[in-house]
Amino acid sequence: MSKPENPREEPISLTPDNTDLRPVAGNGLLDRRLFLRHGAAVTAAASPAAAGLAATNEPWMRRPGREFSNYGEPSPHEKGVIRWVSANASAPGNGISWCPLQDLDGTITPNGLHYERHHNGVPEIDPAQHKLVLHGLVERPLKFSIESLLRYPRESRLCVIECGGNSNAGWRRRPVQTAVGYFHGLVSCSEWTGVPLKLLLDEVGLQASARWAIAEGADAFGMTTSLPLEKLGKDCLLALFQNGERIRPEQGYPVRLLVPGWEGVLNVKWLRTLKITDRPVMSRNETSRYTELQPSGKARMFTFEMGVKSVITTPSFGMQLNASGFYEISGLAWSGRGRIARVEVSADGGETWAEAALNEPVLPRCFTRFRIPWRWDGQPVVLQSRATDESGALQPTRAALVAERGRHGYFHYNAIVSWAVDEQGFIQHTYVDADAPKRDVEDPFDADWDF
Amino acid sequence: MSKPENPREEPISLTPDNTDLRPVAGNGLLDRRLFLRHGAAVTAAASPAAAGLAATNEPWMRRPGREFSNYGEPSPHEKGVIRWVSANASAPGNGISWCPLQDLDGTITPNGLHYERHHNGVPEIDPAQHKLVLHGLVERPLKFSIESLLRYPRESRLCVIECGGNSNAGWRRRPVQTAVGYFHGLVSCSEWTGVPLKLLLDEVGLQASARWAIAEGADAFGMTTSLPLEKLGKDCLLALFQNGERIRPEQGYPVRLLVPGWEGVLNVKWLRTLKITDRPVMSRNETSRYTELQPSGKARMFTFEMGVKSVITTPSFGMQLNASGFYEISGLAWSGRGRIARVEVSADGGETWAEAALNEPVLPRCFTRFRIPWRWDGQPVVLQSRATDESGALQPTRAALVAERGRHGYFHYNAIVSWAVDEQGFIQHTYVDADAPKRDVEDPFDADWDF
Repeated sequence: MSKPENPREEPISLTPDNTDLRPVAGNGLLDRRLFLRHGAAVTAAASPAAAGLAATNEPWMRRPGREFSNYGEPSPHEKGVIRWVSANASAPGNGISWCPLQDLDGTITPNGLHYERHHNGVPEIDPAQHKLVLHGLVERPLKFSIESLLRYPRESRLCVIECGGNSNAGWRRRPVQTAVGYFHGLVSCSEWTGVPLKLLLDEVGLQASARWAIAEGADAFGMTTSLPLEKLGKDCLLALFQNGERIRPEQGYPVRLLVPGWEGVLNVKWLRTLKITDRPVMSRNETSRYTELQPSGKARMFTFEMGVKSVITTPSFGMQLNASGFYEISGLAWSGRGRIARVEVSADGGETWAEAALNEPVLPRCFTRFRIPWRWDGQPVVLQSRATDESGALQPTRAALVAERGRHGYFHYNAIVSWAVDEQGFIQHTYVDADAPKRDVEDPFDADWDF
Repeated sequence: MSKPENPREEPISLTPDNTDLRPVAGNGLLDRRLFLRHGAAVTAAASPAAAGLAATNEPWMRRPGREFSNYGEPSPHEKGVIRWVSANASAPGNGISWCPLQDLDGTITPNGLHYERHHNGVPEIDPAQHKLVLHGLVERPLKFSIESLLRYPRESRLCVIECGGNSNAGWRRRPVQTAVGYFHGLVSCSEWTGVPLKLLLDEVGLQASARWAIAEGADAFGMTTSLPLEKLGKDCLLALFQNGERIRPEQGYPVRLLVPGWEGVLNVKWLRTLKITDRPVMSRNETSRYTELQPSGKARMFTFEMGVKSVITTPSFGMQLNASGFYEISGLAWSGRGRIARVEVSADGGETWAEAALNEPVLPRCFTRFRIPWRWDGQPVVLQSRATDESGALQPTRAALVAERGRHGYFHYNAIVSWAVDEQGFIQHTYVDADAPKRDVEDPFDADWDF
């Protein structure tokens, strides 16, 4: 499999030849249990090495290599693996950058590639000057320096942060053609470490009428959102570390709110105040944004929790299968509700499904990597994945999601994603269900969004 | 707590004042279960916010922030968080760089800070040119390009890689005074993703006499080590990805061997050949190095598995406790044998021990972060941690390790580490046991090692 711009020079074909290995779903998907039991189930037409070993003649073996470095970087050969930036031309600090899911494997997002969503750029904060104030309906309002926060007990949470607007190109009438990371990559998974908010809420002491907290960031936008206190005291952190090191500037350095499983916008970066209140503040980003107009004409607000979701990352848009034969289908599943219970894969547009293997450990509100072997017969097919989480919620078809949410949806798009493989092996995004456009109408959602 | 060069401006004192909270070990260590149940167990003398909220007057709120970036970097305020390099002056590609454990939290090591051990620098390899050959006692020798390797099924393993020589300054007669990462930081923990070696061994087909594999790297040193085939087929990977992205140059780009739980030197980077044999090759790095001279005068070879180990990272050498009161003791534990079962902490030089909390998930052969609350009374104390793994192995005292291994040990040092806190709160490395030097003798181990 390769990207179009980078054709493979030596096609190979891995072909399952173990007679125990039979498709389980009538569409080339192989039973992963059999596959895993019989490790010898693929044979590679990689070049025979019978011509003998290459001598020690690679150019990099003939001279000493590069010296040590204080802080490493990816190989220059991986310079195309980047966050793709989509920002407002007249306000370049307002926009997004996408995590390149198509180039990654495993479940951790490296810090340099964690998606970004900013409203007025990344503030360059001096941690010695930054303060966090807890006030409002409390007994003892307190001001914390970063150094004093670092004195508190800490905990770590491996979890996903996903923008509420992730995948929203799925609402458009015609399937948008772009790499999987530039469509579904407003989500990333890290190990976050910091102070459990419960400790600080106990420290300031809540008044009897306290129900909500208003979180404000120290960026030039002054990002402000409302959060129920119950959630804050349950599992939220004041995150100071990200994948081991101090949190990155674009992720809220020196301190961000971590709200596991809930919309990204609530994980307020560069946190400077938490005001305890008896009601939400009705800020811009919980009224005119991050709300959902329903078919009834009413809008849903405070739709905090992110739903169950999955997407196949390999193969996906822009890649090409070079020959019929064996391929591993691999992707990511996650749910704001908890653990992924099951991921199923279809190679016939949803007619039949086979269960994929989940890479251990399967952790709540984390990326779960799924994999399933597949034998492509060279014919056009449609590949899909659907996840079920431990609450029993099943990822919906696009038709079901649109039927429920109407034509004005913008946030919380979590429908099944369909990749069409043509007879040349090229892969495109497609719609397979009843919601495919009947007419070539102009779609207001095809216009760029006003950030 | 702060580093000496960076004194804290506003001392605070967190003092457990919950009457349910009593020391459990007679030395200020607090029962973590009580602590976790009573979140309100600390009170901060952080500044009262009664003077009112700061207005929106931070300088970084008055101008738009930095724009988006394709690949992020740490804050400039964290530029002191680096791998510390110790290399051969006349052959600068031969040496080590240390992971700064004293500056990190959580369990994942960010890719930029993963420790390095090179023998002749980091080769700059073009992945389109790199080949991996499997040959020797096989039915079908095969040559793989990186692109063909990427066609195989993959798995991920979250695990530690630790240099066999990590912590070896502990063998010296006098306690070496340096930051915890520059003493114990030849260990890092990542999520590695790649092709299970078992698949490729099945693909080439082993002959009946096959017992070992000789792995060779494509660096200018031509690193070569021998590995038992049984281990390779059990859980080893040809690793292509590290914490999500393609493996870093200094970690073996484009492909390294991952040998979970075994000495770092076996995780051969820039892997170019695996030759299947009936015996080990007796290379430099399994004879004159990475072997252990015993008190009997005989040397132990092929001491592959890394033992159970732990170290307190906060507080540790170079930090200062600024006032008596509450502190969280935090550190890392790991074992090449599997999961950590228990970590105990002592604040009286090993007289009494209390069990620390282990941050979930506790995974085999991974860093496990332990934490326990502690109240410092302002008197001199000695802090220690000791880990037990799921095999029942307990981290030894230094005296026990030296008694078993003699005075010629160099690799596999895993003794309990002792931090002495003086009445000013300064922290130094110390020896508390019978192995402390009786005389101020010249120690051959104090000379720099010939890499």
